[in-house]
Amino acid sequence: MQQALRLSELAGRLGGRWREGADPLITGAASLADAGPGDLSFVAGPGHIAEAKSSGAAAFLVAPGVELGRPVIEVERPYEAFARFLALQLPDPDRLYPPGVHPTAVIHPEAGVEATSVGPYCVVGAGATVGPGCRLGPHVTIGCDASIGRDCVLHAQVTVREGCLVGDRVIIHAGTVVGADGFGYLPGPGGQAKIPQVGIVEVQDDVELGALVTIDRATTGRTVIGAGSKLDNQVHIAHNVRIGRHCALSAQTGVAGSCTLGDGVITGGQVGIADHIVIGDGARIGAQAGVIRDVPARAAMFGYPALDFQESFRITAALRRLPAALARLRALENHGRGPGTKAGPEQET
Amino acid sequence: MQQALRLSELAGRLGGRWREGADPLITGAASLADAGPGDLSFVAGPGHIAEAKSSGAAAFLVAPGVELGRPVIEVERPYEAFARFLALQLPDPDRLYPPGVHPTAVIHPEAGVEATSVGPYCVVGAGATVGPGCRLGPHVTIGCDASIGRDCVLHAQVTVREGCLVGDRVIIHAGTVVGADGFGYLPGPGGQAKIPQVGIVEVQDDVELGALVTIDRATTGRTVIGAGSKLDNQVHIAHNVRIGRHCALSAQTGVAGSCTLGDGVITGGQVGIADHIVIGDGARIGAQAGVIRDVPARAAMFGYPALDFQESFRITAALRRLPAALARLRALENHGRGPGTKAGPEQET
Amino acid sequence: MQQALRLSELAGRLGGRWREGADPLITGAASLADAGPGDLSFVAGPGHIAEAKSSGAAAFLVAPGVELGRPVIEVERPYEAFARFLALQLPDPDRLYPPGVHPTAVIHPEAGVEATSVGPYCVVGAGATVGPGCRLGPHVTIGCDASIGRDCVLHAQVTVREGCLVGDRVIIHAGTVVGADGFGYLPGPGGQAKIPQVGIVEVQDDVELGALVTIDRATTGRTVIGAGSKLDNQVHIAHNVRIGRHCALSAQTGVAGSCTLGDGVITGGQVGIADHIVIGDGARIGAQAGVIRDVPARAAMFGYPALDFQESFRITAALRRLPAALARLRALENHGRGPGTKAGPEQET
Repeated sequence: MQQALRLSELAGRLGGRWREGADPLITGAASLADAGPGDLSFVAGPGHIAEAKSSGAAAFLVAPGVELGRPVIEVERPYEAFARFLALQLPDPDRLYPPGVHPTAVIHPEAGVEATSVGPYCVVGAGATVGPGCRLGPHVTIGCDASIGRDCVLHAQVTVREGCLVGDRVIIHAGTVVGADGFGYLPGPGGQAKIPQVGIVEVQDDVELGALVTIDRATTGRTVIGAGSKLDNQVHIAHNVRIGRHCALSAQTGVAGSCTLGDGVITGGQVGIADHIVIGDGARIGAQAGVIRDVPARAAMFGYPALDFQESFRITAALRRLPAALARLRALENHGRGPGTKAGPEQET
Repeated sequence: MQQALRLSELAGRLGGRWREGADPLITGAASLADAGPGDLSFVAGPGHIAEAKSSGAAAFLVAPGVELGRPVIEVERPYEAFARFLALQLPDPDRLYPPGVHPTAVIHPEAGVEATSVGPYCVVGAGATVGPGCRLGPHVTIGCDASIGRDCVLHAQVTVREGCLVGDRVIIHAGTVVGADGFGYLPGPGGQAKIPQVGIVEVQDDVELGALVTIDRATTGRTVIGAGSKLDNQVHIAHNVRIGRHCALSAQTGVAGSCTLGDGVITGGQVGIADHIVIGDGARIGAQAGVIRDVPARAAMFGYPALDFQESFRITAALRRLPAALARLRALENHGRGPGTKAGPEQET
Repeated sequence: MQQALRLSELAGRLGGRWREGADPLITGAASLADAGPGDLSFVAGPGHIAEAKSSGAAAFLVAPGVELGRPVIEVERPYEAFARFLALQLPDPDRLYPPGVHPTAVIHPEAGVEATSVGPYCVVGAGATVGPGCRLGPHVTIGCDASIGRDCVLHAQVTVREGCLVGDRVIIHAGTVVGADGFGYLPGPGGQAKIPQVGIVEVQDDVELGALVTIDRATTGRTVIGAGSKLDNQVHIAHNVRIGRHCALSAQTGVAGSCTLGDGVITGGQVGIADHIVIGDGARIGAQAGVIRDVPARAAMFGYPALDFQESFRITAALRRLPAALARLRALENHGRGPGTKAGPEQET
């Protein structure tokens, strides 16, 4: 935190109401389990009250009316208020990525860089632009004719390849690669012939890309990450994919070529989506699912191949009964019947 | 595209026949769905003719005899011709990776670098060589005694560790790591003791490695990526693996230690192959499959654990009938039989 | 190897006994299958004696009493001795990462760097410390106030973000990112609102992180990688996770937020662990498994969703009999019964 504050002062900053006599000095934030002296924590709901009472926290953000017998700030949505408190804890961005263009940055004379901070050893190619308010960590590479909007943060080692477009307020974590060639080949007598990938990637406003994400440029046209979408670490987006707005793709998810995801699609971790699949708005795909058919809007899918979650859960439950069911089937075949009902063609072993 | 061309001129360059009266100026390439004025598109087969007729493209590459009533170039294999056209659209490599060794590159005096282009902040270690015609993007690291052949492209942030060998015409996308230590430990009383990994990686001619790929060095000897093989983004190849020629491994596939893949093996995305597995020439492994037994040549495998695709598909189809089958089994047990044929040992709930 | 040695000399260095008349000059190490003249290999157990007899190796490490009729060194644990021999083969670290701070390294005046070697273009932020004995490859970024202990090796392109703690003797392979923001958002009317991630990552002593690993900083507090644990390439560890001591997580494994793994947990490749899962000491999770419930200590789990390995294997075996079982069920329904026992509600197709 940039400065310690009394609980009563914090209440004002967070839009809540300070309610107990004690007014501790707050120096940090922590979960109920980890909190110690000086820490502010929060009570997400009634199920956490017991844990809060035994927590080492100095004070708590709680919903109106929650009684802990401890110093609290009452606020309508405690977790949201806690998130606002966390924002106060962030280190000063001027310390992390100091203002100015570091003298070691190699910026092409035909590039247009208005960024607040360009770190050591950044490389910005001919024709590229970086908007005002941006902060680039060390070793960021912006290819020729690429464009980065306003107020973006690109952490260390990020690569944005030539011609790609990044909107405003985009955050890209370390090591992520935007605009590598799509995986396209023509099989022929001499092996796989490369299909040139002349399209680009468009990352729209307010997107956040985790660390070590890959988003491939389109064969022609654009691979699109829609406004407000969030991609976790190690997600892979293939060429020609279009991701809608406000999607959330968890870590290690892979989306194959030419898929279209609607708005608000959510995937668990390690999901795979086969090429040319269309997924409707608001669909949810469970972790590790493998999607091989189009998914309607607002569907919830699980498993491999992915099925509607109710069917998938029924199958999963049934599977645990399968070994015994095979024994029961055999028993039925062997008991009290004529010769025509004996064991089937497959012998059990 | 480096310059706009009339359709009639393009026909010559692409080895096709210009067939209609109109001779539009072609300024770009696009799919049928995305094409607009100035774009050349292509008709892959008869199934796309209707879409082509309503496409906004200025002209089309078509197979001989296809009638669209629109400007076309006739050519035997339209998609191949389109790929050749895409190559004309690529940006000038001298713009992306300008000729010469950037003054910030740190090249050891005992290294031998003949490359066409060495980008800013590249680091080339003692004893390393980089052949003529190569282009290295910014921040590429070539370890001591590593060798890069002729006419390779290594994009930004690529790391090739000490002693590793890269052939001719190899493309390595951004952030990929060739030659990190294999994952080898000896369990002991004080935990896992590291087994030194003193082998190398050999990447043969005409290989393409996607972005953020990892290929580990062998414990002893070589991890080999055979000539012409293509690895998509985020593929992981463990130590001592041997990948044959002209394989294509889709994104996020992982190959565990000491596997041997024959020539022409193709995997879908997110495939996992357990250690010491041997996969025969031309085998195909479906997306997300988990291979735990050797695979014969030309087999097609799916599922987890991976089975022959016909068996796998039968099981997948049968699974959807399993919940009802359990109910039918119960019904059989309950109807028209003596006490000896009642429900089996497991009670259904 | 830094120098060739006679087998008799090597015996002394490796704590073994030289036993045959011949005393070849040893110049390299290799597996039985790959070994050639000058190579030392090893016989892991009786099952490898035949292969050893036909191996091209110059000499062998064998258990006491093993007879090959070839030059050998007898030693209690041949594979361990071979690992010690491999350590002699490693290149000189002063050649790979030369002593001293490279003049291009950008070290903040308020940083404390005692490292043995800081490579070209490293960037060390304000308040950061790097202990004695450390070697940093090229392009390593150490964020503000981060701390790296003694005798660590950080390979090229590693990023350790602000405030994160790395212990002693830690090895981090190329491109790995420690301390990117956890994937935390609050859904709201305007999309996903970012929850600031103000915690850190603590990587304890003797950890090894593979290439292109991601370990996210905690929302508050610490994401912890316990002492001696080993993470293979492309592993992802989400925010607030606690990994115990001496764990081994194979490539492409993903651990979702707030999981707790005990000591000695081992995962195969591509394992996924859902958020808030607790896994007991010594548990083993098979490759590609998806863990969605807590796992007791020393359990062995397989499959998706992960089950105890015995149950999982029974189900896997039963699955292959399922298609035939459905036919047998149909046969039972159709033969020798009254109308009440005919085919169930689902029609087979």
